[in-house]
Amino acid sequence: MSLSYKILSEKAANNFITRHNGVSSKRDIEKALSVIGEKSIADLINKIVPADIRAPKTLNLPDPLSEAECLAEMRHIARTNPVMRDYIGQGYYKTITPPVILRNILENPAWYTSYTPYQPEISQGRLEALINFQTVVSDLTGLPFANASLLDEATAGAEAVTLCKRKAKNKANAVFVSENCHPQTIDVIKARCNPLNIEVIVGPDSQATAQEIFCAVLQYPGTDGTIIDYSSLIKDLKAKSVLVAVATDLLALTLLQPPGEIGADVAFGSSQRFGVPLGFGGPHAAFFAVADAYKRDTPGRMVGVSTDAHGRKAYRLALQTREQHIRREKATSTICTAQAVLALIAGMYATYHGPEGLKEIALRTHLLTRILAEGLKTAGFTLKSENYFDTITLETGVKTADLHRKAVEAGVNFRPISGGTIGISLDEACDESNVRKIWEIFAVTADFDALAEKVTANPDLPGRTSDFMTHPVFHSYRSETELMRYMRKLADKDLALDRTMIPLGSCTMKLNAASEMIPVTLPGFAEIHPFRPLDQVPGYLNLIETLEDMLSEITGFDAMSLQPNSGAAGEYAGLCAIRDYQAARGEGARDICLIPTSAHGTNPASAVMAGLRVVTVGCDQDGNIDMADLNAKVETHKAALSCLMITYPSTHGVYETGIKEICDLMHANGGQVYMDGANMNAQVALTSPGLIGADVCHLNLHKTFCIPHGGGGPGVGPIGVRKHLAPYLPGHFHLKDAPERHRRGGTVNAAAPFGSASILPIPYAYIRMTGAEGLKRATEIAILSANYIAKRLEGHYDILYKGENGYIAHECIIDTRPLKEKCGVTVDDVAKRLIDFGFHAPTMSWPVAGTLMIEPTESESLYELDRFCDAMIAIRREADAIERGEVTHENSPLARAPHTAESLVDDALPYSREQAVYPVKSLRASKYFPPGSRVDNAYGDRNLFCACPPIEDLAE
Amino acid sequence: MSLSYKILSEKAANNFITRHNGVSSKRDIEKALSVIGEKSIADLINKIVPADIRAPKTLNLPDPLSEAECLAEMRHIARTNPVMRDYIGQGYYKTITPPVILRNILENPAWYTSYTPYQPEISQGRLEALINFQTVVSDLTGLPFANASLLDEATAGAEAVTLCKRKAKNKANAVFVSENCHPQTIDVIKARCNPLNIEVIVGPDSQATAQEIFCAVLQYPGTDGTIIDYSSLIKDLKAKSVLVAVATDLLALTLLQPPGEIGADVAFGSSQRFGVPLGFGGPHAAFFAVADAYKRDTPGRMVGVSTDAHGRKAYRLALQTREQHIRREKATSTICTAQAVLALIAGMYATYHGPEGLKEIALRTHLLTRILAEGLKTAGFTLKSENYFDTITLETGVKTADLHRKAVEAGVNFRPISGGTIGISLDEACDESNVRKIWEIFAVTADFDALAEKVTANPDLPGRTSDFMTHPVFHSYRSETELMRYMRKLADKDLALDRTMIPLGSCTMKLNAASEMIPVTLPGFAEIHPFRPLDQVPGYLNLIETLEDMLSEITGFDAMSLQPNSGAAGEYAGLCAIRDYQAARGEGARDICLIPTSAHGTNPASAVMAGLRVVTVGCDQDGNIDMADLNAKVETHKAALSCLMITYPSTHGVYETGIKEICDLMHANGGQVYMDGANMNAQVALTSPGLIGADVCHLNLHKTFCIPHGGGGPGVGPIGVRKHLAPYLPGHFHLKDAPERHRRGGTVNAAAPFGSASILPIPYAYIRMTGAEGLKRATEIAILSANYIAKRLEGHYDILYKGENGYIAHECIIDTRPLKEKCGVTVDDVAKRLIDFGFHAPTMSWPVAGTLMIEPTESESLYELDRFCDAMIAIRREADAIERGEVTHENSPLARAPHTAESLVDDALPYSREQAVYPVKSLRASKYFPPGSRVDNAYGDRNLFCACPPIEDLAE
Repeated sequence: MSLSYKILSEKAANNFITRHNGVSSKRDIEKALSVIGEKSIADLINKIVPADIRAPKTLNLPDPLSEAECLAEMRHIARTNPVMRDYIGQGYYKTITPPVILRNILENPAWYTSYTPYQPEISQGRLEALINFQTVVSDLTGLPFANASLLDEATAGAEAVTLCKRKAKNKANAVFVSENCHPQTIDVIKARCNPLNIEVIVGPDSQATAQEIFCAVLQYPGTDGTIIDYSSLIKDLKAKSVLVAVATDLLALTLLQPPGEIGADVAFGSSQRFGVPLGFGGPHAAFFAVADAYKRDTPGRMVGVSTDAHGRKAYRLALQTREQHIRREKATSTICTAQAVLALIAGMYATYHGPEGLKEIALRTHLLTRILAEGLKTAGFTLKSENYFDTITLETGVKTADLHRKAVEAGVNFRPISGGTIGISLDEACDESNVRKIWEIFAVTADFDALAEKVTANPDLPGRTSDFMTHPVFHSYRSETELMRYMRKLADKDLALDRTMIPLGSCTMKLNAASEMIPVTLPGFAEIHPFRPLDQVPGYLNLIETLEDMLSEITGFDAMSLQPNSGAAGEYAGLCAIRDYQAARGEGARDICLIPTSAHGTNPASAVMAGLRVVTVGCDQDGNIDMADLNAKVETHKAALSCLMITYPSTHGVYETGIKEICDLMHANGGQVYMDGANMNAQVALTSPGLIGADVCHLNLHKTFCIPHGGGGPGVGPIGVRKHLAPYLPGHFHLKDAPERHRRGGTVNAAAPFGSASILPIPYAYIRMTGAEGLKRATEIAILSANYIAKRLEGHYDILYKGENGYIAHECIIDTRPLKEKCGVTVDDVAKRLIDFGFHAPTMSWPVAGTLMIEPTESESLYELDRFCDAMIAIRREADAIERGEVTHENSPLARAPHTAESLVDDALPYSREQAVYPVKSLRASKYFPPGSRVDNAYGDRNLFCACPPIEDLAE
Repeated sequence: MSLSYKILSEKAANNFITRHNGVSSKRDIEKALSVIGEKSIADLINKIVPADIRAPKTLNLPDPLSEAECLAEMRHIARTNPVMRDYIGQGYYKTITPPVILRNILENPAWYTSYTPYQPEISQGRLEALINFQTVVSDLTGLPFANASLLDEATAGAEAVTLCKRKAKNKANAVFVSENCHPQTIDVIKARCNPLNIEVIVGPDSQATAQEIFCAVLQYPGTDGTIIDYSSLIKDLKAKSVLVAVATDLLALTLLQPPGEIGADVAFGSSQRFGVPLGFGGPHAAFFAVADAYKRDTPGRMVGVSTDAHGRKAYRLALQTREQHIRREKATSTICTAQAVLALIAGMYATYHGPEGLKEIALRTHLLTRILAEGLKTAGFTLKSENYFDTITLETGVKTADLHRKAVEAGVNFRPISGGTIGISLDEACDESNVRKIWEIFAVTADFDALAEKVTANPDLPGRTSDFMTHPVFHSYRSETELMRYMRKLADKDLALDRTMIPLGSCTMKLNAASEMIPVTLPGFAEIHPFRPLDQVPGYLNLIETLEDMLSEITGFDAMSLQPNSGAAGEYAGLCAIRDYQAARGEGARDICLIPTSAHGTNPASAVMAGLRVVTVGCDQDGNIDMADLNAKVETHKAALSCLMITYPSTHGVYETGIKEICDLMHANGGQVYMDGANMNAQVALTSPGLIGADVCHLNLHKTFCIPHGGGGPGVGPIGVRKHLAPYLPGHFHLKDAPERHRRGGTVNAAAPFGSASILPIPYAYIRMTGAEGLKRATEIAILSANYIAKRLEGHYDILYKGENGYIAHECIIDTRPLKEKCGVTVDDVAKRLIDFGFHAPTMSWPVAGTLMIEPTESESLYELDRFCDAMIAIRREADAIERGEVTHENSPLARAPHTAESLVDDALPYSREQAVYPVKSLRASKYFPPGSRVDNAYGDRNLFCACPPIEDLAE
C-alpha cells in the first residue's frame, strides 16, 4: 500500500458515508451497474434526473466530520447549555427515566428503528406496549377509549375541539377555552380554529355557561396549578348540550377524581412526565381519551384487539380506514405521525411503577409542594389558591423581578406568570434540597422537618376513589430483571431495521446510525425546559440555527422552521404560510388548492384544515400530472387559485420532466407551489425544491434525515420557504423576545417553540458527517439500488411507472393485480408471505390499490437487496404454481402466510413444513417466526376493544 | 393513602433494592416463606446462618442513593478526571470504538449479561464472534492457533513463559526477557517466575543468545518503538533449542512481517487498540497465539469447531479438560476468567474495518508518526531509532523535565522513558492537529503539508507480504446496517440474563442494572491511560478509595487491593501476600497449603503457581470439612503449614458450623486462612470473612458485586486482608510515588496498577444504591430464593447437602445420578432439555459429578423461580416415563434435547412435536429455539480447529 497521508486522512474523515451507504465498494457498485446496464453512476443519474433541474454546483456545506469528531462536537454543544433547574411547569416537568427503559428502549435499535405497526403480524410487541399505554391513559382519565398518542398537548387540544365540532350536539359555532389552560394550548386551538371559522372564546371558567358554544375546554389542574372540582360546571354545560374536553395531567389523576367520572367527553394532555426527558420541548407523547360515543371519531392511531387466522387474540391498529391515506379531503385531522416511542416509554414507566408506585410519586410530589408552600407562607408570601397538586402560584408583587433574578443566579428558573405572580412546579425528581434552595431564594427560614411532619394531602381536593391499572400487566414487572425481559420479549416479536430491510416506498427507512442517536440522550440536550429563557440555551440555538442553515442550503430555500413536529404538521404550516402571505397581500380570497390524484392523503387533509378548497388534478398513464387537466383547472380557478401541492419525484416514483413548467404555470396565475418533501431522499444534492421552483416545502427529518421512525413516531416536519414567505413561518409566544431570526409572525404550529428539539441532533449529525459529497452519494446510491431492484424483478413483476429512459427514481411500484386475476393471490398474500422470508412488506396498495411500492434507500447492502429480490421471485414462483393448477390458492403457502412456529406443531399443512417456513435455504441459518398468524382486521373493527384484554382471553 | 412525606421520600431513596431483588413485595415474600414453612425471613436466616458468625451490627456504609442520584454522582466523579491527551503508549493507545459496536455490544444486555459459553447450544453467537477474534489474532500473528483472550498483556507474557517451560526443548531453567519489553510485562513475568524458581534474565536483545535459557521473550515493536527484524536472532535461538515468545501489536502487524513467519513459537499482546477504550488500564483482551505444536497446551479458553447431533458445524470451547475445574493441582495456569466481551469488541472492530481498513488505519498512524518525527528532527531533536511504527523515543537531554511540564500545561502526557528521553506514541485517533500541538510543545515550526507530501512508509521495516483476514466474514459487514444486523443475529442465537435466569451455582448471575452500567462508557472514565500521572486522576482515585473502604467494611478487613483482574488472579495475589508475609517473618519455608476436596479448582492451581505444595483435606457426607482429617493434616504438616484455602459457605452450599474452629486451628498452628470469596453473595451483611477469622479473601466483583459476566469476562478479583498482610498487597511501579495508601510492597499481579479500573463504577454504584440494609436484604433474599427452589424440588430430586436445620445456603445441589441409574438419563440430558424450556442449565457436575448446582441469586422473581421449578419437575416426569418403560431413553425428548426449529421440519420424532418444543404451554407465548442441536465435544477435540471454518463447510 503506498497511499499518502493526505489521501488516508481524507478517507478517514469521509468514512461515515461508506458506513451509511449499503452499496459502497467499487465492486458492489459495478455489480449493480452491470445488472442495470450502465457504465457509471453519472450515466445512470443523467438518464434519470431531468437536466433542467440538476443542481449546478456542489452544496455549500461544511467539510464532513468523522463519527468521533461529530460526537465530540455534539458533546461540546450539549455542554454549552448551562445546567439549570427548571420549576417552570406549564405542561413540562422534570422526570426520571428508569435507566433500564432508557437503555433498552430509547437506546435500542430493536425499538427505535421499527416502523408504524401497519403490518400487525410483525408488530405484536410494540402493539402490546402501546395498548398498555392506552390502558394507562384510559384508566387514569376514567374514559373508556384512549388513542396511541398525538403530537403534543396543544395540538391534542385542537383535535379535541374539532372532534367536538364534528360530534356537536348543538348548532353553536364557538368554543369556550378556559383561560386557565396552558397558553400554548390556547394559542394552537386559536390557530387551528381560525381557518375553520370556529370562534374561540377565552375566559374565566365562570363565563363558560354564559356562552353559545358547542364545546368547552377546561384544564384540571389549571395552568396556574389550581384544582377546581368541575363536576357541577360540567353538569351545567351538559345541560346546555355542550361537549366538554378537559386538559389534564396523568400524575395528578392518580390522586384526583378523573375527568371521565365527572362527565368529560374528552380528556387530553401530555404523558411527558411519565419518564420522557424534557428535551427542550419534545418529542413527547400527548394522550387523548374519549367517552364511548366518540370512539370511532378519535383522531390518530388506536391499537385494538382482534383475532388471527388461528382464532387467537392479536393486536393491530384499529379503524385504519380513518387514516389519512384513505380519507383524503374527507379527513378531519392531519394527524398521522404519532409519538410511538415516547408513548412506549411512558407506558413502560407506568408498567414499571404500577398504580401504587405512581400514587406514591404523586403523593410525594404533592406533599413536598405542600411543604414548599407552607414554608413560603411563613415568610409572608400568599398563594393564588390553596387547592393545588404540584404547582403553586405566588403573589410576589413588586418583588417579582428581583426574585426571578435571584433564582437565575442560583441556577433556577421559575415561571413568570405575570408581572406580579410567580409559578413554581415541583416534580418527581425534587426532594428536600430543592425546596431548601427555593426557600433560600425567597429568604424563607422554615423548619423543613417540622413541616414535613405536619403536612398532609390537601383534603379539599376532589379525591380519587376508583382503582386504576388493575390489569395484571401493571403488577408483574416490578424488578429490573423482569422488566428487562418483558421489553426483550416484546422486541423479539417485532421486525425492525436491526433484523431486516424495511423497503417501504415513500417511508425511507434508512440507517439511523448509533453516532446520530447517542447525542439525543446526553443530559445537556435532554434536561431543558422548552420555556427556559433563550439566553440559557446557547447550545440549542447554535444547533438549531446551523441545522436551519444547512437545510436551507439543501432545499435551496431562504428560511426554515423546525417547529412542525410531523410531516403533516409541516404541510399544514406551509399552507398556513401561503394563506397568511396571500392574505397580507390582500388576496385572502384565494382558497383553491390543486392536488394531483397521486398525492399523499395528508395533502388534501392539510388543505382542508388550512381552510382551502381542494380541486383534484388527474394523472396520465405514466403517473405524471395530466397537463391538460392541470391547465384546465388553473384556468377555471384562476382568480381563486391559492396553490398547488405536488410531490417530487412523484409518488409514482418518477421524476416528472414537466415540473418546472408546472411551477411556472402556477406562478403565472398567481398561485404558489407547495412541494411535499416525502421524496426528498431522491432530490438531496442532485436538485432541490428551490431550484425546481417551489415556494415552500416540508421535509420529513424522520425519512431523509435519519430520525428513526420509532414504531410510529417521533417525526419532525420542518418547512423551508422562499424569502417572501419567511415572515409567515410559525411563530410562538416564547419567541417574542428571541433573536431576530427566530421571531416569526406566522401561525403557531406546535406546543413548543422549536417542536421536537431534542431529536434535532440526529439530522444535524447526519449532515455534518456526510457533507456535500456524501449527501450526493447517498442520493445516487438510493437511486442505483432502487433501479437494481426494478431490474432484478423485471420479468417477474410489472413495474408500473417508469421515467423517459425506462428507469425509476428511488422507489418502484410493482403490480400484483395480475396475480390476483390469474390465481387469486392478493397483495396481502404477497406482503404476508414476505414475513415468512423474514421481511417487512413494502408499502401496500398505495398510491395504487393492489400494488407494492418498494424503496430500498441507500443504506441497504447488495446482499440484502438480493435477499429481498430472491424472496419476491420465489413468491412469484409460488403464484405460478397456482396458475398452473398444481395447487389451489387456499391450499397454497401464500394464502396461509405468515407461518408461525406453532403452525409447525399444530397444523396439518397442505404443503411441506419446509416450504412453509424455509422456502429458501438461507432461512435455516437465521429465521424470524412471527408471534401469530394473519390478523383479521375487520373483526377487530366490528368488535372494537382498545385496552389490555382480560387475562383469561389471552390464556385461551 | 396517608403516607407521610418522610416515609415516601425514604421509600424513594431506597427504591433501588426493590428493583434489584426479584422477590420484594410483602406478598411474594410471604408466599415464598409459606412454601418453605417459616414465619419470617429473620426466622429462616437464624436457622441457617450459625449464630457465632452473625454480624453483630449493621454495616457502616453511607445511606443509599437513588439511581438518579447515583448517576449524577458518577457523572460528577468522571468529570473530576481532567481531560488530557495521552501519548504514553507502552501497550495502551487511544482508539475509536465504532458507535454501532459501543451501543450494540458494550451497552446491550444481550451481550454483556451472558455467561461463559460452557453450554455451546445456547452460545453459538458469542462463540462465532470469539472465533472471529481468534482468526484475526491467528492471521495477524502468523501463528495457527489463538485463544479467546487472556487477562492482560503482562500476564499473557507470564503464561507464555510457563507454557515454554512446560514444552522446553532444553533443560535450562532461565528465561531471557528483552529489556525492550514493556516494564509491566517484565515485572509480571518476574513475579510469576519467582515462586516457580525460574530465573529471569533481563537484558538487551544482543545478549539473548549468550544465555543458558529455555525461552526468550522479545518485543516487536519494542516498548521504545524500535522495530528490529528478529528473523536472524530467532534463527540463532532456535538453533540452541530456545523457544521464542514475541510480544507484539496487532495494528503494527497489518504492516509488519508477522512473528509466526520468522519462527516465533508464541505471540502475545493486547488487543485494546482494536476499539476498546483505555479505561485507566482495563479491562482489555490480551491475545495469545501459538505454533501448531503447542495448541493443546495453550492457556485460557479456545473456541473450536465441532459438529452437532445433526452433523452440522457448531462452535464450542475446545479442550475444556485443560480448564481449572478439572485439573486442580495439575493445572499449570490459573487463567479461567477471559476478557470475552472485550475480545468480542476487538474482533467486531476488525470485522467492521476488514483487512484493508485496518491496514489503512495502521498506515495513516505510521505516516503521521513519520511526519511528527521529521518535524521534530527539523528542530534538532534526535530519535533513538528510525525504525518505528507509531512510537518514537526522543533524546531530549536536559530539556526533558521542561518538556514534560510544558506538555502537561498543554493538556498532554508524554511517556517519561528515562531522565533524558521522552516517548511519544500516536494512535488512530490522531490527526494533523495532534501533531501540531506536539510540535508546539517542542517549539517545532515545520510545514505539515510539505512533510505530509514527502513521507512514505519506512522501507527499512520488515514488511508484511502475506495476506490476512481473507475469510468472507471479514469482508461482509462494511455498512453499519449490515454490522448491526450481524450483531443482532449473533445475539439472538444466545441466551443471556435478558431472556432467562441463569441459575449457575457459584457463578452468581444476578442483575447487572442499567444504572450500574451507564457510567462505564462515560468519556471521563473511558479515555484515561493507566500510566497517566496520578495527580491527573482525582476522580478515579476517589472512586477507588471509596470502593476499597466500602469493600473493607463489607468483608471485615483492614485493607483491600483492586488490582487483580480476575478471581483466580485474586487468589494468587492473596497467596502471594501470605507467602511474602511469612517470608518477611523468617517463615519462608512454610509451603503447605491445605485445600478441601470440595474447593474450586482454581484453589490448588493458584497454590501451585504461588510455589506452595497442596495437601488435600477430605469432606464428610454432609459436605463439611472432615475435622478429623483436617486435624491430622495440620498435625502432620505443622512446621511447614502455610495456609488453608476454604470457601464459605462451602461449595456444597452449606454454612459449615465449624468454620471458626477451623480458623482458630490454623492460626494456632502458625497458618493463615485464605477464604475463597466465590460464595460471598451468601455472606454480605450477615457475616464476613473478617468476622469468621480469615486473614485474606478475594472477592469476585463480577459475581456478588454486579459486574456482568460478559460471556466470560471481564472479572475483577480484589483481595481484602487483615492489617498484618496489608504491606503485601500487590504493588506496581506506577504506584511508587502514589499517595501512601496506594504504595504497596507486594507481588505485582496485573499489567495496570488498578487492574480493570473502568468497570469499578459498577460495584461502586451497586453498593452506593443498596446501602447497608439493602445489601443485607439482598443476601437474605438470595437465601430465601434458593431455599424456595430446594423446597419446591424436594420429592422430585434429592438435595445433596443441607445444613443443620435442613436448609441450604444460597445454592443447592440436586442429584441427577439416580436418574442415570434408573433410566439412563444423564445430567447432560437434563441440562440440554432445560434449553427446550428456555433456560440456561445450572452448574453441571461441580463440585460433584452427576449433579446440578442451582443458584438463583436475589434478582430472580417468584415467577421465574416457579417457571424453572416447573421445568425441572416436567423433566423429572419425562424421566419417570422412561423408568416406567413407556418410552426408551434414546427415544425420549431428554436424549434428543435440545430441539431446534429445524428439527420440527426435518426430523421424524418418536414423540409429538408439541412435546419436543412446547413441553409446557407457556412456551407458546415466548419460545427460544437453539440454533443447533447437541454439540459433540469429543469430536471437536479430536479434530481441533479453532479459526473461522471455510465457508463451504458452513454451507453444508
